[in-house]
Amino acid sequence: MSTVTDLLQPVEQDLEDLLNDLRSLIGAGHPILQAAAEHLFSAGGKRIRPGIVLLVSRALSPSHELTSRHKRLAEITEMIHTASLVHDDVVDEAETRRGVATVHSRFNHRVAVLAGDFLFAQASWHLANLDDLVVVKLLSRVIMDLADGEVKQGLFRFDSGQTFTQYLEKSYCKTASLIANSVEAAGVLSEVGESNLSNLNHFGKQLGLAFQIVDDILDFTGDENQLGKPVANDLLNGYLTAPVLFALEEEPSLATLIEREFSCDGDLDQARHLIAKSNAISKTKELAESLCRDSKDAIEWIPESPWKKSLLEMPQFILGRLY
Amino acid sequence: MSTVTDLLQPVEQDLEDLLNDLRSLIGAGHPILQAAAEHLFSAGGKRIRPGIVLLVSRALSPSHELTSRHKRLAEITEMIHTASLVHDDVVDEAETRRGVATVHSRFNHRVAVLAGDFLFAQASWHLANLDDLVVVKLLSRVIMDLADGEVKQGLFRFDSGQTFTQYLEKSYCKTASLIANSVEAAGVLSEVGESNLSNLNHFGKQLGLAFQIVDDILDFTGDENQLGKPVANDLLNGYLTAPVLFALEEEPSLATLIEREFSCDGDLDQARHLIAKSNAISKTKELAESLCRDSKDAIEWIPESPWKKSLLEMPQFILGRLY
Repeated sequence: MSTVTDLLQPVEQDLEDLLNDLRSLIGAGHPILQAAAEHLFSAGGKRIRPGIVLLVSRALSPSHELTSRHKRLAEITEMIHTASLVHDDVVDEAETRRGVATVHSRFNHRVAVLAGDFLFAQASWHLANLDDLVVVKLLSRVIMDLADGEVKQGLFRFDSGQTFTQYLEKSYCKTASLIANSVEAAGVLSEVGESNLSNLNHFGKQLGLAFQIVDDILDFTGDENQLGKPVANDLLNGYLTAPVLFALEEEPSLATLIEREFSCDGDLDQARHLIAKSNAISKTKELAESLCRDSKDAIEWIPESPWKKSLLEMPQFILGRLY
Repeated sequence: MSTVTDLLQPVEQDLEDLLNDLRSLIGAGHPILQAAAEHLFSAGGKRIRPGIVLLVSRALSPSHELTSRHKRLAEITEMIHTASLVHDDVVDEAETRRGVATVHSRFNHRVAVLAGDFLFAQASWHLANLDDLVVVKLLSRVIMDLADGEVKQGLFRFDSGQTFTQYLEKSYCKTASLIANSVEAAGVLSEVGESNLSNLNHFGKQLGLAFQIVDDILDFTGDENQLGKPVANDLLNGYLTAPVLFALEEEPSLATLIEREFSCDGDLDQARHLIAKSNAISKTKELAESLCRDSKDAIEWIPESPWKKSLLEMPQFILGRLY
């Protein structure tokens, strides 16, 4: 089974350069932002999003060289992603993310707002200077989707009437849009034809949804160390994900526990029990598997190379997190 | 003496339409954002920034008609401005702005972060869809400058070594950049020639700087009711503006009071006294007057019309706030 380090190995140096660039771009001239940038872009993070953009960029290039515009695109992708995480952590009042202190808990929410805004601003400035209106539109759509997704997520907290479509839309906005549109943008910069642009988008979309859905399964099946947060933490916070929505179909009594926001003793444990004894987890796994197959099929046309090989293994790696 | 209502009268209906559009664009689909949008875009605000963009747009149009793209540009300008205010109020921990509760004090800082992000996101989406790369670059520069200005402002708090150039740069970033670049963008959409584009930019830049400098004078000479905040509030918070920097040249002892952050009894009163007895206020007024003259000269070439008339009177109106 490949690890993420194995998969990103063909762009390992590119990712290291990218992190160095980001640290110096963001921190320059302000000690507090410098500290936040160090905190955000220090080694250790997996950087799977810019990693995918870099893999696609090198896979599509006839000589497998990375142009400065592709490099910049990967940076913009990571800036947007990081800005959105920093602000989401303020909105969600999260103290840690994957076991690491969030910017607003490490510093304060003023620094978090400033650092996020600064990242968004840098991203939109560099985006405009890629000088490609199609790319500008794709990435501004991502920024829109991220804000929209955060609003949607808040709107549906503890709402057991949430539909599966609404859940998928929220997941698309918060996770898949960035991957889908940035991978498509890499294709635009590589002058890929229209139908393969939509294949690239589809690859990113299905991969992003699968990634989110696997995360949502792990909220129930993972352990605290792996997750960097307590088990069923999303459920406790009222975020109803695929396993919960599938379980609700089999166990309508789950709705009562959700609607009263797990306020009675033992509610959360009972909810976890109802989900575990239903077919929800296996149905959710099937969904993730089907998205992964789809994702893989969408990039068959890319010429063979070590970069393509990593991209093809990405869906399997995502599913592998479950075992 | 004209009031702002007089000056904006030729675009009064345009501004009303704009506010209606903004309320429905921002609030749609989320009760909390709806409330924040109502709060932000309710009647009463002066909307001088989109007002200027609308005046320029109509003044430049041969038939004085407003195109939908000019209208959208004015909306984007107001979205960016409002988003930046909402986030700045979180960063500066301001409870009120011009006497009205800020979003984070009326709601909470989570809603403020979300509403600001949503506005920035809407702005960049609509911006990309104006389909003009030059306009995208101008406005993304504004977003960059606003974030940069907020960082700069924090960096120079209570720093009596701040230079006049640094103060002007900060003021450009926080106030003038938006007016300069959005007015230039209106010119781009109207297909104005290169040299008049830089005239438009200069008009907006000098007007914006004068506006900020007059605000900075009023911090000392205004009364609490007019300002919607205590007199010398900026100074107390460590924001050193033109009057302070001029006074420091004549009264070096002012530096001591600033460096110890007015921590001793009577420090703030003594600082105000030193500034009042120096020539700082009159020197600052002269600077504002010269910027206003400059600003007026930069748009002489625009054909005569009621919209141009308002634009020409804008600098005088700004100075008039001092009397």
